[in-house]
Amino acid sequence: MKIYFSPASPFVRKCMIVAQELGLASQIEKLPSAASPVVRDQTVAAANPLGKVPTLFTDNGQALYDSRVICEYLNDLGKGNFFPKDAALKWQALTEQSLADGILDAALLARYENAMRPQELRWAAWTTGQMDKIKSGLGYFETVIDTRGKTFDIGTVALACALGYLDFRFPDYDWRSPYPTVAAWFAEISRRPSVADTLPSV
Amino acid sequence: MKIYFSPASPFVRKCMIVAQELGLASQIEKLPSAASPVVRDQTVAAANPLGKVPTLFTDNGQALYDSRVICEYLNDLGKGNFFPKDAALKWQALTEQSLADGILDAALLARYENAMRPQELRWAAWTTGQMDKIKSGLGYFETVIDTRGKTFDIGTVALACALGYLDFRFPDYDWRSPYPTVAAWFAEISRRPSVADTLPSV
Repeated sequence: MKIYFSPASPFVRKCMIVAQELGLASQIEKLPSAASPVVRDQTVAAANPLGKVPTLFTDNGQALYDSRVICEYLNDLGKGNFFPKDAALKWQALTEQSLADGILDAALLARYENAMRPQELRWAAWTTGQMDKIKSGLGYFETVIDTRGKTFDIGTVALACALGYLDFRFPDYDWRSPYPTVAAWFAEISRRPSVADTLPSV
Repeated sequence: MKIYFSPASPFVRKCMIVAQELGLASQIEKLPSAASPVVRDQTVAAANPLGKVPTLFTDNGQALYDSRVICEYLNDLGKGNFFPKDAALKWQALTEQSLADGILDAALLARYENAMRPQELRWAAWTTGQMDKIKSGLGYFETVIDTRGKTFDIGTVALACALGYLDFRFPDYDWRSPYPTVAAWFAEISRRPSVADTLPSV
């Protein structure tokens, strides 16, 4: 398999954590990319018209995206349990993946607003709206993460990637003080090799 | 079941099309919402911290989101085939759902930029980047939609919602001329009651 890769992308990281947990990482060749919402990577766009990473090529050449699809594909391939079979757990994990992905989408939009958009065109209400989503999302996880701690499913993989991205791109945002239970869970889960080996970098 | 609903939301529409196709629509009570990225709906946010529609409550009270999760849940409940069992078809349908959802995400960002953001803070390069994603995505579907025409799976449901949203919010954007095969497919699929009955409105 091959994957359009960026070491800074939290959505690529979801895929690489699942791959490493299932022993599949060595089977995935990393292809470089330079995806951006305003300067599109035409090489990536040839396989994925959205021009986004991650995009995975299966061994038979099928292009799969986005991270949710790739993670489910890797889970099936590696016979994992990141997508639980039990119905109640499955819908919980999938919804928590949506929430963590939504936290990431908000964080990315806040970053594009404040690091990419010309300074004179920035809109404070937009950033506030995105940061509110992040806070509400972390508030939810603060109330439930203690009961999720022993499993590492697609919801908690996505949460780990969201928290790692906040640390990476918003180093001044202290999310740990208001959400100490999430912080303790993240400290513990960060010791897993799949998480430690995929820390984001520029 | 209950769903936080907006008649303008293309992601709500995905769920309602699947529900109607599977005979489940009458079992879903529609709850009003006023979701917006800058003025969040706190009633919705109590169930879904992202404050986004659609959010579905199952009959046992579990809150599910986003549209991908809700559509898969309804498909399981109604024993549908919107998520094909055959592996190759499944990954194709899921990836095409990602693409159509990505077209919608781009269209929504372009709309927020040009209808919600104060005029003096708009960034033309941002809108161009989003519209490029839409065009590349439609270009992909132009090459494959003839072979998808006889099935209505989650990928083509999402495509129908994306095209309906372009007509609804970008009435001056003539996507039919460059993508005539997609236009012919959309004209045909729009005759299905599930599509005709869920046309977007303000």
